[in-house]
Amino acid sequence: MMENVSLQRGSVTAALLVIGDEILSGRTKDKNIGYIAEYLSGIGIDLKEVRVVADDESDVVNAVNALRRRYTYLFTTGGIGPTHDDITADCVAKAFGVSIDVDPRARALLLQRIAEKDLNEARLRMARIPAGANLIINKVSNAPGFRMGNVFVMAGVPSIMQAMLDEVAPTLQTGARMLSESVRADLREGDIGTELGAIAKAHPAVLIGSYPFMDDQARPNTNVVVRARDPAELASAKAAVEAMLARVRAALGMPVTRS
Amino acid sequence: MMENVSLQRGSVTAALLVIGDEILSGRTKDKNIGYIAEYLSGIGIDLKEVRVVADDESDVVNAVNALRRRYTYLFTTGGIGPTHDDITADCVAKAFGVSIDVDPRARALLLQRIAEKDLNEARLRMARIPAGANLIINKVSNAPGFRMGNVFVMAGVPSIMQAMLDEVAPTLQTGARMLSESVRADLREGDIGTELGAIAKAHPAVLIGSYPFMDDQARPNTNVVVRARDPAELASAKAAVEAMLARVRAALGMPVTRS
Repeated sequence: MMENVSLQRGSVTAALLVIGDEILSGRTKDKNIGYIAEYLSGIGIDLKEVRVVADDESDVVNAVNALRRRYTYLFTTGGIGPTHDDITADCVAKAFGVSIDVDPRARALLLQRIAEKDLNEARLRMARIPAGANLIINKVSNAPGFRMGNVFVMAGVPSIMQAMLDEVAPTLQTGARMLSESVRADLREGDIGTELGAIAKAHPAVLIGSYPFMDDQARPNTNVVVRARDPAELASAKAAVEAMLARVRAALGMPVTRS
Repeated sequence: MMENVSLQRGSVTAALLVIGDEILSGRTKDKNIGYIAEYLSGIGIDLKEVRVVADDESDVVNAVNALRRRYTYLFTTGGIGPTHDDITADCVAKAFGVSIDVDPRARALLLQRIAEKDLNEARLRMARIPAGANLIINKVSNAPGFRMGNVFVMAGVPSIMQAMLDEVAPTLQTGARMLSESVRADLREGDIGTELGAIAKAHPAVLIGSYPFMDDQARPNTNVVVRARDPAELASAKAAVEAMLARVRAALGMPVTRS
């Protein structure tokens, strides 16, 4: 739905940049977008945009710069391993215009799990950290992510990414959590579209979404989702939706109790 | 990995724009990105970028204009239903600077399944089509998508989106299909990073990716994926990878036959 000013004001926003040829080729199915979306919603941060780009330097640098300037935070996943296609750290350094080299703190972390003789050039890539960044340590892998300005660089492997997100979450500025209520319409979307639009217009501090689904008897049905930061605004809009649904069901001669 | 000129030349490219608050809030987990990525790879179209944006007019218009100018094709999913938060058709009209109104062809399609008395203002939203667009008819739903220039506007419901993609696929210009081979390394990523980078550099017409995984005994392992349009280039790079893997395994004193 259309964003409106009262919802935007004071909100903490984020973008997610997923980096990896394997997602764009379809070889790997992304599992991080949905997880991060739900996680951020839960702590009062509005995920406003997601991009998926290839392991291509200019694509990654341009996306990092576009997104870090537009939102409170930018999270990235992927491209921080030991091989030639892991270019995220170098791209973030380039986006910020800073140098990048093996970081002694990151090297020490790797040595907790890797013998010094095995710490070859490839593995040392995982210790390359842009100048001025802080490490994101995690409990699953000793290869750290890092925070550079408002950008959080995380692994692509879901279990490691999730551990990193748990590490950084307590350090994030968060907004009032977006509250959400779902109302089952027992009507088709097309039965209520006009009425729902009128309620959305009358409640500018509330986001109202409409999601069709098939019920367990394969009949078209609709969930109406009402979201707001203010509990009173939410309750008022939800009541308006429920009253409208009852009116439309009655007008269509449907039973008052749900079948 | 870094894109290179020989891979780009003559290739057919695409972007995907996923439209919907419900994906960004985490309420709905997207199932279209992976499906479309795999589908396009299979017919020789390179998916180069994906964006997910909210149901917000300026966000959608800006993304449509950025992506349609940059790639051969742009596919969109979501936002073409009958409610106030379905704004994709209006946004595409705005992006192209054309008018939008109820399209008689789309209205006739809706009337095949909806009685005229039920064709209210909300349902008629689904017949709003930008001037100059062609309809994308599908076998699952009578509400059509449409093609406007190089932009294909499809439903967000996976079954309907998939039917629409089947409709448009035969009309698309396609490139040489990207061929792909996967080689199981039986080594950790960090064992082969440097050598793999050298092979990638020596085979500029080949994309080489490295994907760590845990084997069924929870030991770290790696899949090396080699991709190219030319079968001879692919075979040559794959042979180089296999020879390198055998060398590294021997140097580490690992058995020649896989355990």
